[in-house]
Amino acid sequence: MKRAASEFSFAASHLDHPHIFGQCRGLESAGGTLKYAYDRDPQRLDGFCKLHPGVTKLRSFEEVLAADDVHLVASAAVPSERVELGLQVMQSGKDYFTDKAPATSLEQLESLRRGVEETGRKTFVYYAERLHNDAAWRAGELIEAGAVGRVLQVLNLAPHRLAKPTRPSWFFEKACTGGILTDLGSHQVEQFLSYAGCESASVNFARVANFGHPDSPNFEDFGECSMTGDNGASFYARVDWYTPDGLPSWGDGRSFIVGTEGSLEIRKTLDPSRQSPASLLFLTNSDGEEEIDCLGQTGFPFFERLITDVLERSETAMSQRHAFLAAELSLRAQALADHVWD
Amino acid sequence: MKRAASEFSFAASHLDHPHIFGQCRGLESAGGTLKYAYDRDPQRLDGFCKLHPGVTKLRSFEEVLAADDVHLVASAAVPSERVELGLQVMQSGKDYFTDKAPATSLEQLESLRRGVEETGRKTFVYYAERLHNDAAWRAGELIEAGAVGRVLQVLNLAPHRLAKPTRPSWFFEKACTGGILTDLGSHQVEQFLSYAGCESASVNFARVANFGHPDSPNFEDFGECSMTGDNGASFYARVDWYTPDGLPSWGDGRSFIVGTEGSLEIRKTLDPSRQSPASLLFLTNSDGEEEIDCLGQTGFPFFERLITDVLERSETAMSQRHAFLAAELSLRAQALADHVWD
Repeated sequence: MKRAASEFSFAASHLDHPHIFGQCRGLESAGGTLKYAYDRDPQRLDGFCKLHPGVTKLRSFEEVLAADDVHLVASAAVPSERVELGLQVMQSGKDYFTDKAPATSLEQLESLRRGVEETGRKTFVYYAERLHNDAAWRAGELIEAGAVGRVLQVLNLAPHRLAKPTRPSWFFEKACTGGILTDLGSHQVEQFLSYAGCESASVNFARVANFGHPDSPNFEDFGECSMTGDNGASFYARVDWYTPDGLPSWGDGRSFIVGTEGSLEIRKTLDPSRQSPASLLFLTNSDGEEEIDCLGQTGFPFFERLITDVLERSETAMSQRHAFLAAELSLRAQALADHVWD
Repeated sequence: MKRAASEFSFAASHLDHPHIFGQCRGLESAGGTLKYAYDRDPQRLDGFCKLHPGVTKLRSFEEVLAADDVHLVASAAVPSERVELGLQVMQSGKDYFTDKAPATSLEQLESLRRGVEETGRKTFVYYAERLHNDAAWRAGELIEAGAVGRVLQVLNLAPHRLAKPTRPSWFFEKACTGGILTDLGSHQVEQFLSYAGCESASVNFARVANFGHPDSPNFEDFGECSMTGDNGASFYARVDWYTPDGLPSWGDGRSFIVGTEGSLEIRKTLDPSRQSPASLLFLTNSDGEEEIDCLGQTGFPFFERLITDVLERSETAMSQRHAFLAAELSLRAQALADHVWD
C-alpha cells in the first residue's frame, strides 16, 4: 500500500529565483508539508515565510542539511550553484528538487549524475513549462493515447518577459545562468523528449545572440536550436526575452506538434487578444478540429508522483535519465552556439 | 502618366499546377485581360477556358510565343520545365509570370537570371503565401511602418494538404519538383527576406525527410531550414505535407515575427476550431494587444504593381533580385539537406 502524501515533508532553501514559489505550491497542493525555509537574504526569507504561515525559519543551510524530519529540499538557487547544493542535500540523505536548469556546465551535470548514483538519492527538476502547465501536460496524455499518431516534430516558441528592473545582477551573467539555451532551452528540450518519446538526440544547429542589451555584454536575449531525436523526430525551439510590454502574460509560449495522424497546438499561458490566463489545446486529426480548454483541469499530477517516488523510491514522475538528458542536450546546444558565434 | 491596367493583356500557358487559377485571378482583378490560353492537355485546357469565357484557345506553345498582342505569359508548368519556358517567353519579347518555385536547380536559376539580363524582360514569381494573402501582406505593411521595431526573427510553419489522389505523378518526383525546400520552402524564404529586410542570408541548417510515404521514395513529406540574414535576423521554417484530413483548409500556415519592440502572429488561412477561411494578424507591442481581421481587406496590391511594372518597365511589385534570391536560398537549403542526409 502506498504511503500517504501527508507523510511527506520538505524544506525550501535558496530562494534566488521566484520559481521556488511554484515548486512549493505544487508540492503543497499534492499533500506535502513545507516545514522549514532558509535563505541567505533575511528579507526575502521573511517575504517567503509570510506566504507559508506554518513554516519554521532556519538560520543556515547547515541547519537545512541537518533537519532529519524532511524528505526533500526544494531550491531555486543561482543556477551555477545548484549542483553543489544538490550534492550536499543528497549527501545529507534527502532528495533534491531544483529549479531548472539543474546545472550550468556538462562537468557540473556529470557530478550531479554521480551524486545521484553514489547517494541513492534523487534529483527532481522543475521543468515547469510542461509539468506545471495544464495544456502542456494534457498534450502529453493525448499524444500518449495516440491522438496524433507518431510524432514527427515538436516546435516550441518561448518568449519570456525580461522585466529588467526586477532581475538580480546574476541574471545577466552567463557564468551564473549558463546562457539562454541552458536556461530557457532546457524546458523546451524536456518537452521535445517527452512528446516525441526520444531516448537521445543530437544537436543540429544552435545560435545565441544579444540583440538589444549592449549594457549587459554577457547576457543573451535570443537563442534557437534544432535537434533530431534517435527516432527521427525533429525539434526546433526559439527562446527569447522579447515579450512585449503590452502582453498580459510573461510570455506567449506555444508548442506545435506534428504527427503522422494529426497535429496539436498548445497555447500555454494565454490566447492572444482574447483571454488571459488561458491554457488551451487545439487538436486536429482525421476526426476534425477540437479546441480543449485545459485551465485548471489536470491538477498537475507530476507533484503527486514526485511525492510517491520519494516515499516509495519509485520512478513515476520523471526518470533521472530523462531529467538529466534534457539538461545535457540544452548544455550541448549552448556549447555549439557559443562555439559557432564566438 | 501611368498607363491604365486595362491596356494590359496576358496569356496563360502550361496549366500543370492549379496555382495558375490564382495567378490569372490576381491579374484579372487588377484590371488585366486574359486573351489566350494553351495547355498540352486539351481536357484541362477546356476546363480552364470554361472559367474564363472570353479567352481564345491556342493550339501550341509556339502560338503563345507568336502572339504579339499580349505583354506577359502566366504559367504553372511542371517546376523543372519553368526556366526553359520562361527563357522562350522572354526571348519572344514578353514578360513571364511563373508559379513558384521558378527553378529546380541553381544552374537553371542562373540561366533564368541571364535570360532576364539578356532580353531586358522580367520574370515575376507567384509567391502566393505572402502576395496573395491578406494578413501576410498587411503584416509587411505593419513591419514597414515600424510596428514591431527591428525584426529579429521570422518563423514560418507551413503544413500543406497532400490530397494524394489528386496529385499528378510528377508531384512525387524530386527531379520534377526540386524537393520540398525548393518548392514549399521558397514561399517561406521569400517572406523572411521581405519581413526582415535582408539583402542576403546564409543557410545554417536544413533537413528533409520522407517519414510516411515509402511507396514514393523520391518524395519528401517534411522539410525544415534555418538561415541567418546579413542584418543578423534569424529565420526558421518547417514545411510538410501533414495537414490533417479534419482541417477545413489546405494548411494552417502561420508566421511568428519577433521584433525589438513587438511581435506579430499571422494566421494565414484559418483560425483553428473557430473560423475558416480567416486571415488574421495578432500584433503585440508596448501599446497592448490587437487582433486585426484582414480577410478581404488588402486587394492584393502586388498584381496592380506587377501590371504597372510591365507597362512602365519599373520595379515596384518585387525586384528581380529579391525574387531570385528567395529561390536561390531555397535551393541552397535543399542542397544542404540533400548533402547532409544522403
